[in-house]
Amino acid sequence: MATTTRTGQAFERTAFDAVIKRRLFFTEAFEVYRNASNFTGDNRGLYDYGPPGCALQANIVDLWRKHFVLEENMPEVDCTVLTPEDVFKTSGHVDRFEDWMCRDVVKGDHIRADHLIEAVLQKRLSNHAATQPADSRDYDTKKDTSKVLSDATVVEYEEILAKIDNYDGPEMGTLIEKLDIRHPDTNNKVSPPVPFNLMFKSSIGPSAAAPVYLRPETAQGQFLNFRKLLEYNNNSMPFASASIGKSYRNEISPRSGLLRVREFLMAEIEHYVDPEGAKRHGRFDEVSHVRLPLLDRETQLSGNTKVQVRSIGEAVKERIVDNETLGYFLARIHSFLLSIGVDETKLRFRQHLPNEMAHYACDCWDAELLTSYSWIECVGCADRSAYDLTVHMRRTEEKLLVREPLAEPKIVTEWQAKFDKKALGKTFRSAAKAVEEAINSKDQPALAVLASTLVDAERITITLPSREDVVLDRAIVKIEQSTRVENVREYVPNVIEPSFGIGRILYSLLEHVYWHRPDDVARAVLSLPLSVAPTKVLIVPLSTQLDFAPIVRHLSQSLRKLGIPTRVDDSSAERRTGHTLGHHGGFRDGQGRLRDAARARQHPAGPRRSGGCCGRGEESRRGCGDVGGGLW
Amino acid sequence: MATTTRTGQAFERTAFDAVIKRRLFFTEAFEVYRNASNFTGDNRGLYDYGPPGCALQANIVDLWRKHFVLEENMPEVDCTVLTPEDVFKTSGHVDRFEDWMCRDVVKGDHIRADHLIEAVLQKRLSNHAATQPADSRDYDTKKDTSKVLSDATVVEYEEILAKIDNYDGPEMGTLIEKLDIRHPDTNNKVSPPVPFNLMFKSSIGPSAAAPVYLRPETAQGQFLNFRKLLEYNNNSMPFASASIGKSYRNEISPRSGLLRVREFLMAEIEHYVDPEGAKRHGRFDEVSHVRLPLLDRETQLSGNTKVQVRSIGEAVKERIVDNETLGYFLARIHSFLLSIGVDETKLRFRQHLPNEMAHYACDCWDAELLTSYSWIECVGCADRSAYDLTVHMRRTEEKLLVREPLAEPKIVTEWQAKFDKKALGKTFRSAAKAVEEAINSKDQPALAVLASTLVDAERITITLPSREDVVLDRAIVKIEQSTRVENVREYVPNVIEPSFGIGRILYSLLEHVYWHRPDDVARAVLSLPLSVAPTKVLIVPLSTQLDFAPIVRHLSQSLRKLGIPTRVDDSSAERRTGHTLGHHGGFRDGQGRLRDAARARQHPAGPRRSGGCCGRGEESRRGCGDVGGGLW
Repeated sequence: MATTTRTGQAFERTAFDAVIKRRLFFTEAFEVYRNASNFTGDNRGLYDYGPPGCALQANIVDLWRKHFVLEENMPEVDCTVLTPEDVFKTSGHVDRFEDWMCRDVVKGDHIRADHLIEAVLQKRLSNHAATQPADSRDYDTKKDTSKVLSDATVVEYEEILAKIDNYDGPEMGTLIEKLDIRHPDTNNKVSPPVPFNLMFKSSIGPSAAAPVYLRPETAQGQFLNFRKLLEYNNNSMPFASASIGKSYRNEISPRSGLLRVREFLMAEIEHYVDPEGAKRHGRFDEVSHVRLPLLDRETQLSGNTKVQVRSIGEAVKERIVDNETLGYFLARIHSFLLSIGVDETKLRFRQHLPNEMAHYACDCWDAELLTSYSWIECVGCADRSAYDLTVHMRRTEEKLLVREPLAEPKIVTEWQAKFDKKALGKTFRSAAKAVEEAINSKDQPALAVLASTLVDAERITITLPSREDVVLDRAIVKIEQSTRVENVREYVPNVIEPSFGIGRILYSLLEHVYWHRPDDVARAVLSLPLSVAPTKVLIVPLSTQLDFAPIVRHLSQSLRKLGIPTRVDDSSAERRTGHTLGHHGGFRDGQGRLRDAARARQHPAGPRRSGGCCGRGEESRRGCGDVGGGLW
Repeated sequence: MATTTRTGQAFERTAFDAVIKRRLFFTEAFEVYRNASNFTGDNRGLYDYGPPGCALQANIVDLWRKHFVLEENMPEVDCTVLTPEDVFKTSGHVDRFEDWMCRDVVKGDHIRADHLIEAVLQKRLSNHAATQPADSRDYDTKKDTSKVLSDATVVEYEEILAKIDNYDGPEMGTLIEKLDIRHPDTNNKVSPPVPFNLMFKSSIGPSAAAPVYLRPETAQGQFLNFRKLLEYNNNSMPFASASIGKSYRNEISPRSGLLRVREFLMAEIEHYVDPEGAKRHGRFDEVSHVRLPLLDRETQLSGNTKVQVRSIGEAVKERIVDNETLGYFLARIHSFLLSIGVDETKLRFRQHLPNEMAHYACDCWDAELLTSYSWIECVGCADRSAYDLTVHMRRTEEKLLVREPLAEPKIVTEWQAKFDKKALGKTFRSAAKAVEEAINSKDQPALAVLASTLVDAERITITLPSREDVVLDRAIVKIEQSTRVENVREYVPNVIEPSFGIGRILYSLLEHVYWHRPDDVARAVLSLPLSVAPTKVLIVPLSTQLDFAPIVRHLSQSLRKLGIPTRVDDSSAERRTGHTLGHHGGFRDGQGRLRDAARARQHPAGPRRSGGCCGRGEESRRGCGDVGGGLW
């Protein structure tokens, strides 16, 4: 995808990748093994962070903790990755946390069905575009007319791509068949899509009898601790818990570097809110004026991808965004991303399509960042409703709910079934319990209907799961209204979940802050804000004279003792002697923050209050003097 | 084990556990599932950190990063947990990373063999002690004389316990048989010890053909990136890489809370040093005066556990500690532990016994902390020699070594075998390659012997692995000296590895800082140093009047915006009205650090420059006013 750098040049991924790799921001894990003879492993989708990547990641996490956990007073938890199978059976992940995959019928390679369709249709569209005359005077006859698509086909492909996330497996199978979609590497036919569970499985303990999964999200650990966290929060609602930790997804065909990996760092918030009261948020007023670029569901389903910039206050009022709490977090996500240096023009919020949402979600907006790989989901903000707490409560019989004292006692009148247990047992024997449960599980309107049927017809017919219908008369069951007084209201809170993929944010951020001078592609700059920059001060000695060494060492050690990451660059000291240079370094202001260090040279472009450092080829490495407030 | 609190009272674990649990420092993971019907999982050895535990952990990690990574300028990496099987086959973990386990022959429960022996012998010794008269006037005839041990048996048991880590599986099997050791819960006999690999296994990718393990240590990822890290460090030696991350060990029988868990956070340093030059360290002078409590190998093998306090300079000089680099890190570990609040009187450094060391180690010292569970290994400091880099280099053929330009070219004279390939192939056919390799893999002295044999006897005999010996004459091979000039010295660095178990440190630290007034066991204090305390300021409103609420909220929000964790305690405001109280809170000094906040009340005991907060039963919770500089 063609993107431009912040200074307007075309973004060249090859040059960018070379800088990131050379400076060791991150690197393919187990790279030394990949080419070893007889290596049987699979290291795709696994990446190691080198020193600057590791520091950048730690700084992003630190800011995240300050922006959310500390500023909003969220109890933070750190739960285990290893999770017993029962938990994910209950949450639905064992049955439903899967992607659809196809197999190359000749080679056997697996590929994700949606990625396959996307890749092939995008290729056909771009081949088609290449056959079109750029203007009326362009009559290049060498263009391959076999790749021309009809106008109707172009529209069809574009519509499919706009709603690619909305197809299920069988629908994708039909598309693959109808459009003759083949494996892009081999042009072989592919098998129909089959589901593949994305969780890594292992077993725990010496007997190997207890299956465990590596969590695919941090959320379940937070939910299972809900009651303890509520107590920790003095039983006061609403509140949010937070967690930062690794999660694991066994991606079918990892690609795009850090953007689709099998092991990744997440930061997740679970905000618990009373479903009554329209999910209002006490601090919504503070953010309601914030204008966000929104791409809603309807726009996408009409085959369009144009964003509308709206204040979040308006968007919630018009129900484009469902409720205040969801809206509040979208605004907070927005300010967090800008604070770490994300380019505002490459950020949008996209609403999920109905079939695209996770099995637990009832509404979801993604913060997407534009990269050379297209728009990338970096933060998901889902309304998980009461789903998770409800299913875990049902399974464990532990009360994962809120008990709220009522200001005034409430008188509740309810239909209730009363059984003559003896008659029930005699009539239905082994089915007696199932009959009782079938009636007790009815809701109030259904019980009211049964009560009146029982009065009118003197009998009711009940359908049992996988059995024949049964008939009960008034000798066995009575359904009557009874009244009781409630002093406490019990409810299962709804959960709004902002979920951050730290690796994706980090990668997209690096693309956003990368630039170079128009005439000097090889000398790259990464203008990271001071707060996230891995190195705060670059010490550049003017001379390699031995006398300088202890001074440089002393300066560097003193700064590091103060907790200020520094780096010494003495590679070009000799050249620098006699040049006129600005001073380097930084100092602490009253708030204990580093102010911008003066620059060695003025950049012709680039925002002022940000840092950067050259990344250059081996030959041009010497002479690095381009520094700002934050360096790496 | 009987330990005392810092104020001299007996440490009562039940009271301590209750505080830790109530304040949600950490909690059993998946506790709500444990009692669910039909739960088939195993949640033992899995713990979640609640808000204060999570903050304490983050603060310890943050100080660790400042103390080691930043102050010593170590490149930090963050590598994946998922590791292809090949890597751990090479490192030896697939074959040797195991514990010995026994099975209850009736119930089938598994137990670690060394833990079994320890538990049973300790029980026998304590039963025996209970039968002994406290002094000569004590003639309690009710004591169970069947539990009396002979003096020789007491000595034997104590010696076994002192070197319990030195036995291998068969030796433990012999002890179990000889001493009739049975399962402590059931008194059933146990099966002989069998090895059990402690790594969790899974598979990666859709075909399930590629086995992976969860790493049991962070080290291998660092080793595999050695060449990149050396380059990042401008090819300058010595240097250390560092990593903080989760590791996993499938413990046979987890116990003792956080002290033996299956998922845990580690912080590891791999210091790469030239094996020539006695592993000196450039900053050893800065620490050589530091006095450390050392328990060396010889003392333990003599059945003794008395520490000697020595300066690390002396200890290295006398070769109690093998080398300066190992000694430097022991001193740095010591200062780190004290800086986070560890009790100096409950810290010792114990040298590993020969059979106790990991398969890769050539010397190892553990920093052990005394807890109510006995002395606990919290930091290991091993000399892994060149083991790991060598085996990975051999397997991958990637040069994981240092190339050092020589100040002066070096002339090397070496014995070399030269083969007549044609004659070799004709004589040995399919074995020719093996013959060539067998000779080429000989070292210089061996080649010198072969050369002289070949001159004297005109033939040599070579032993081939799993084949018959072969005889070569001078028509097939010549062994002669040749000379070449070397400009670069290549060597595989040795690795000194300080490895920190963060969870164990955190737990032991909590035991060390826990105390209570002599007459008030229920009101606990945790005197954590300010730097690691989860909460820095407690805001205690004097009144619950509604007018106070916005002031408290404003104060709390302002502090949190500055990055200072606060907690509001309004549970007892009414009671407090009218009392004379000190002021609460803290302020920033010039270095941006919080000074001690004034105390609400004076404690009768406890160190001055540390914080604490009451942990009390539900009834006595109200009225909390005991605060210091650091709170939780």
